[in-house]
Amino acid sequence: MTLRDRWLLPEGVDEVLPPRAAALEQLCREVIDLYATWGYELVIPPLIEFLDSLLTGTGSDLDIQTFKLTDQLTGRLMGLRADTTPQVARIDAHKLKREIPTRLCYLGTVVHTRPMGTGDSRCPLQVGAELYGHSGVESDAEVLCLMLETLKLVGQQQVYVDLGHMGIVRAIVAAAGLDDDQTAVLFDVLQRKAAAELDELIASWQIDGDQAIAMRALIEMNGDAEVLQQARQAMAAGGAAVTAAIDELERLIEIVGSRYPDVNFYVDPAELRGYHYHTGLMFAAYLQGEGVGVAYGGRYDDIGKAFGRARPATGFSVDLKRLLALHDTAVRLSPGIAAPWSTDAALQALVADLRAQGERVVVQLPGTEATLAELGCDRCIVERDGQWQIVSA
Amino acid sequence: MTLRDRWLLPEGVDEVLPPRAAALEQLCREVIDLYATWGYELVIPPLIEFLDSLLTGTGSDLDIQTFKLTDQLTGRLMGLRADTTPQVARIDAHKLKREIPTRLCYLGTVVHTRPMGTGDSRCPLQVGAELYGHSGVESDAEVLCLMLETLKLVGQQQVYVDLGHMGIVRAIVAAAGLDDDQTAVLFDVLQRKAAAELDELIASWQIDGDQAIAMRALIEMNGDAEVLQQARQAMAAGGAAVTAAIDELERLIEIVGSRYPDVNFYVDPAELRGYHYHTGLMFAAYLQGEGVGVAYGGRYDDIGKAFGRARPATGFSVDLKRLLALHDTAVRLSPGIAAPWSTDAALQALVADLRAQGERVVVQLPGTEATLAELGCDRCIVERDGQWQIVSA
Repeated sequence: MTLRDRWLLPEGVDEVLPPRAAALEQLCREVIDLYATWGYELVIPPLIEFLDSLLTGTGSDLDIQTFKLTDQLTGRLMGLRADTTPQVARIDAHKLKREIPTRLCYLGTVVHTRPMGTGDSRCPLQVGAELYGHSGVESDAEVLCLMLETLKLVGQQQVYVDLGHMGIVRAIVAAAGLDDDQTAVLFDVLQRKAAAELDELIASWQIDGDQAIAMRALIEMNGDAEVLQQARQAMAAGGAAVTAAIDELERLIEIVGSRYPDVNFYVDPAELRGYHYHTGLMFAAYLQGEGVGVAYGGRYDDIGKAFGRARPATGFSVDLKRLLALHDTAVRLSPGIAAPWSTDAALQALVADLRAQGERVVVQLPGTEATLAELGCDRCIVERDGQWQIVSA
Repeated sequence: MTLRDRWLLPEGVDEVLPPRAAALEQLCREVIDLYATWGYELVIPPLIEFLDSLLTGTGSDLDIQTFKLTDQLTGRLMGLRADTTPQVARIDAHKLKREIPTRLCYLGTVVHTRPMGTGDSRCPLQVGAELYGHSGVESDAEVLCLMLETLKLVGQQQVYVDLGHMGIVRAIVAAAGLDDDQTAVLFDVLQRKAAAELDELIASWQIDGDQAIAMRALIEMNGDAEVLQQARQAMAAGGAAVTAAIDELERLIEIVGSRYPDVNFYVDPAELRGYHYHTGLMFAAYLQGEGVGVAYGGRYDDIGKAFGRARPATGFSVDLKRLLALHDTAVRLSPGIAAPWSTDAALQALVADLRAQGERVVVQLPGTEATLAELGCDRCIVERDGQWQIVSA
């Protein structure tokens, strides 16, 4: 391998350099502090776990995204986490074991075997919040509001929120009597919004009447909140579960919309991203001019069952490195003070004191020459009349 | 796999739960802020890289400690980082490319295939600082002082600092004319302080006279700073390089000792931990009653050469999770305020206002019951005479 290749990073693997790294650190702190004021407690799950723990209760998407490692102590397969949510669900179910609603948040890198989309990072810095132990739409509304507050931290208020509901698709699938293989095929077609393929499936599976109307409506019915009126009728074949899901969507829009009048809602029942574990309301945030979502969330009530304790759950996650990229405030080093190198106790006391006050003090090492500008300093310490003094450049 | 097994973490893999996670986050912030006031800029290298980048310029220890992954995009081997220092050296050499001394710091998890010692974590939270571009003892002194300041953050001032110098061992090895294989065998014996085995090696390699005395002195000469006087004589066969190394050790003790009178120095030239990349002064911090070091550092001037740009370098690292464990201050959640769930705009404005002031406000979701104590709250919001008011529990 050539010298040049040695320092190239793999595609989709990025690093953050000064001064952006300091800005990212600042954003991380603001996010964690925000979540704390909403009552979300920080948890720090490990980067690696046994593969069964990481993937239990999730779908095959996550399996494909997860790097596998062999535990040299046991020979068992471990995984490098590709998502933090299943880890937090495990913590809620088996470490904390609380009966009351539990609010948890996390911040850390996840690693994907491949970029999810073109140009995507394989090492997103995932931050998120999860609310366990409450099944009503009020908890979905809370986490969606917190997701919007997260976007506000980087100045994004004009947000488009896509809303879906896994309950709608599941009910229509159940009413049509599809088996697991058929369901997987249908989900694929729905995600690609391939109307012609859907018609072929409906014909080949001999689905007709109201069932066929309901299934076609999954692709056709999308738009602003009003579309829910039509969907109610077109999807009637899905039964009471569809009605309940549409009620939830309407209620969510009502609660969150009154609080965030700048937010635009877009309803799309066939938006099935994250179908590896979601069960109810699902939401994604988009920004003007950005084709890809910046934040994703929804309800995933069943995930804890695999760990022996099913709890209702809802939450969201955001890639903070992507969020930082949207936030184009110039990042600047706070100006510092250059100090000469010396073992003089008075100088060392002065330097220690300045640092304790939060000043950045850079020592000029013997034999090195750097201008104040190169050191990012606007002042320096000099000796005058036997006294150490701070003078401006 | 049984249900019970699914939520067990692999040996040496730990996670941090509330309220300790908040304490760890707080410690992380204090460390990064401390380093910023000393002029160390944060860098965030990736968790995974091509294996050649991670291991170039380092020894086989690090190779064994590194989990290997296949990059699905190129088929090339990647590694999950077991140490951050080589990454930061790469950043200094190839991303920043500055001519002036460059101070960098980092904070993030590294992953080891096996625990380094009994009971050690395989996922330490490594924080560290590195200083590039200065070869004098003054820069070693600066990073050692910053390491001591890091320990002070968790209330540790009575620190024992072990000092070694790779230049001493290298000079004696060179004078004795040992080849690479012999050197590796010698290093192993020295690290175990196996005096009898060393005598056998000296005999079988037919080393005699001053060379044999110097080699034996590597194990025999250890103790407080005074031992350096004797070492100077006993190791004279190592030539000028040994004298220069001992001068550096004495100067380091003088500079740092005057500034930190509570610190005890212990000189041990055969302490070769980290010989995968160190080249000069080496130091480790121990605490009273703890057999294992809590912080490690030293000079590693050659590492950048593998990336095409050799710069003098010195630095240290600490496992923050271990440091937190030494810091047994009780961690407490700041008391919060419980708020009823409501879509009332006046209540929502009050809650938003309290949160903006940094208060933790937990909403009681409809249909759930939790006492103020369970929510960690000492106040709640109630409606009285048509007004929302905060009342104490």
